Amino acid sequence: MLGTVLHAPGDVRVEELPRPTIQKPTDAVVRLAAACVCGSDLWPYRGIEQLAEPRPMGHEYVGVVEEIGADVRTVQVGDFVVGSFFASDNTCETCRAGYQTSCVHRDFVGGSQAELMRVPLADGTLVATPGTPDPDLIPSLLAASDVLGTGWFAAVAAEAGPGKTVAVVGDGAVGLLGVLAARQLGAERIIAMSRHADRQALARELGATDVVAERGDEGVARIKELTGGLGAHSTIEAVGTQESMMQAIRATRPGGHVGYVGVAHDVALPGDELFFSHVHLHGGPAPVRRFLPQLVDLIWTRQIDPGKVFDLTLPLADAAEAYRAMDERRAIKVLLQP
Amino acid sequence: MLGTVLHAPGDVRVEELPRPTIQKPTDAVVRLAAACVCGSDLWPYRGIEQLAEPRPMGHEYVGVVEEIGADVRTVQVGDFVVGSFFASDNTCETCRAGYQTSCVHRDFVGGSQAELMRVPLADGTLVATPGTPDPDLIPSLLAASDVLGTGWFAAVAAEAGPGKTVAVVGDGAVGLLGVLAARQLGAERIIAMSRHADRQALARELGATDVVAERGDEGVARIKELTGGLGAHSTIEAVGTQESMMQAIRATRPGGHVGYVGVAHDVALPGDELFFSHVHLHGGPAPVRRFLPQLVDLIWTRQIDPGKVFDLTLPLADAAEAYRAMDERRAIKVLLQP
Repeated sequence: MLGTVLHAPGDVRVEELPRPTIQKPTDAVVRLAAACVCGSDLWPYRGIEQLAEPRPMGHEYVGVVEEIGADVRTVQVGDFVVGSFFASDNTCETCRAGYQTSCVHRDFVGGSQAELMRVPLADGTLVATPGTPDPDLIPSLLAASDVLGTGWFAAVAAEAGPGKTVAVVGDGAVGLLGVLAARQLGAERIIAMSRHADRQALARELGATDVVAERGDEGVARIKELTGGLGAHSTIEAVGTQESMMQAIRATRPGGHVGYVGVAHDVALPGDELFFSHVHLHGGPAPVRRFLPQLVDLIWTRQIDPGKVFDLTLPLADAAEAYRAMDERRAIKVLLQP
Repeated sequence: MLGTVLHAPGDVRVEELPRPTIQKPTDAVVRLAAACVCGSDLWPYRGIEQLAEPRPMGHEYVGVVEEIGADVRTVQVGDFVVGSFFASDNTCETCRAGYQTSCVHRDFVGGSQAELMRVPLADGTLVATPGTPDPDLIPSLLAASDVLGTGWFAAVAAEAGPGKTVAVVGDGAVGLLGVLAARQLGAERIIAMSRHADRQALARELGATDVVAERGDEGVARIKELTGGLGAHSTIEAVGTQESMMQAIRATRPGGHVGYVGVAHDVALPGDELFFSHVHLHGGPAPVRRFLPQLVDLIWTRQIDPGKVFDLTLPLADAAEAYRAMDERRAIKVLLQP
C-alpha cells in the first residue's frame, strides 16, 4: 500500500510500504477516507525537530474499519470512524479524568498519510459515526481528529465561555478552530490575532468579532486597548514558540486563563513574570478523545463546519506538494485523498 | 517611633524613624499589635534580591487604627484591623475578580516591623475584627495577614478539596498553613514534604496525613508511590526555586493542579516538560484580601489556629535576632512585639 515517509528535512516521499496488520488483539486496521498534514508535521519537515530515521507521517485520520483484533468490542468492520492522535484505553483513571493523551497505556498513532493504518487500543481511541457520512462531511470529521479537538481543548483550557473576551494567538488551523470553539462555548468577544487577509476572513467566518494584525508587544498593547486595559479573560495559544507563549501570557488579565496547545519548542517561561501575571496556565497535547463524541455530533447535525480550514485538496501521491504548500503558508491545511 | 530597617544583606537595625502620617485621604495609620518576619524578607536579607537603598521592613500586620484620612469609610479610629501585604481598592474589576494583589490601583505596603505604619487604600485593604481580640488570637490574626492567606490561596489555586490528594512542597510557614488550608477545604489526603522533625510534627498537627522526607526526584517518586503511580491531584508550591517548582510540577498527575506562591527567583519553566505534564498552573502574589473576611471569622470562632506557626516571640528591638533565627532555620516564624 502507499504511504508517506519523511526521509530527511524537506524530503517527503510517497512510497510502497508493508500493509499494516493486527499486532495486538486490541488493534484495528483502518482504510483511510482522508488524511492531512498537521502543523506539527512541519517541525521535523523543517529540521527543527530531529529525525532519527525515516518516519511514516500523519496522525489525523477518518476512514472505514477494515479489520479488528479479537478483543475489540466497540467498533466493527465496516464502521466509519474518527480517532485521536494518541491511542488511549479510555478506562484508566487518567482517561476518566479527561486526559486521554496522558493515558497510562497511551500508544503512538502514526502513518495516517497512507491508504491503511493500524490503530492501537481501538476501543479507547476510535469513535464510530452514526453511519456512512455524506462526502461533504468528511473534511469536518477529519478536522475533529486533531485540529478541531485541539482548538476545542485550548478553548476549554482557557475557560472560554459566556461573558468572556477570548484572544487567539496563532492563525493556523488550530487557532482558527479555537475561534470556532470559543464561539460554540458562548464567548462574548473573540479576538483573532492574524496578519493574513485570507486567515482573518476565515477567522471572522468562524466567529471572530475582532482581528488584531499586530504581534508581540504591539499585539499585546492592542488586546489591552480592546479590553479596558486589562487583557483578555481567556487566551488560546496555538503556536508553541517563546514569542507566542509570552504574547499569550501578556495578553491575559490577572486571574485570566491561557490555554496552550502549540507544541512547545525551545520555550522557557520566566518564573517571575509568570508569578506576577496571575494567569492560569493549562494545556498540552489535546485529549481529543474526551471531546470526540460531542464534536462528531455537532458535525453530523451540521451545527459546525470545521472542514473550512482545508483550503487545498490533493491526491495522496502529491503529499510532497502538500508539505511545501503548508511550509510556505500557501495553504492553511491540506487534505490528502488516498 | 521605632522601626526595622535593612541596610545591607545581613544588616538589620531597629532605629528611630519618622512617625508615619496620613499622606492621602484614603490612608490609615495603624499602631501595630504584632508584626513578624516573612520568608520573603530573607531574599534581600541574604543578598539574593538586590537592595538599592536601606529598606523599612515588614508587610504583615495587625493592630489598632490610630488615624484615618478624610475619605476612609469602612474602618474607624480604634478598630482592631488585619490587612494584606498589597494595598488594593477592592472595587476595580480585577479586585472584584478576586485578584486584589493585581488591583489597578495597587500600592506597596511596607514598614510593619515597627510601632506604627501607614496603610494606603485603607477601605480596600483593611478588615476590622468584630471587636478587640483576646491576646491569644493575635498570632493567628497576624498569620492571616500573609502566611495563612498565602497558603490558603495556594490551596485554592491547587483546587484542594474533597476526594483530593494534596502534596505540599515547602515546610515554611506558608507551606504549613497550606496544609491547614487543604484540610479546611476538605482534602482527603495531605502529604507534607519536610525533612525537619519539628516541622513534620507541626504539619501533622495542622492536618497532614502523610510526610515525605525525600526531595527532588526522590520526593517525586515517593509521591507517585503514594498515589498509585499518578501523582497528587493538587500540589502546593511554597518555596519559589527552580527545584521546588519542578518538584511540584512533577509530583502532580496529568490534569492536576499546581498552586504556586513561593516568590519565583531565577525560575525558568521548560515549555516542553510543562506541555507534556498536562498540569494546571496558577499562583502568584496571594490576593489575601479575597480571603480575609472568611479567615478572620474562622480564627475569631476558633475553628483554626494558624498562630501555631510562630515558634519564637521577640521584642521588636530584637528584630536582628529574629532575622538570624529564621535565616538559620532555628525558627519557623518569629513574632515581633512592638
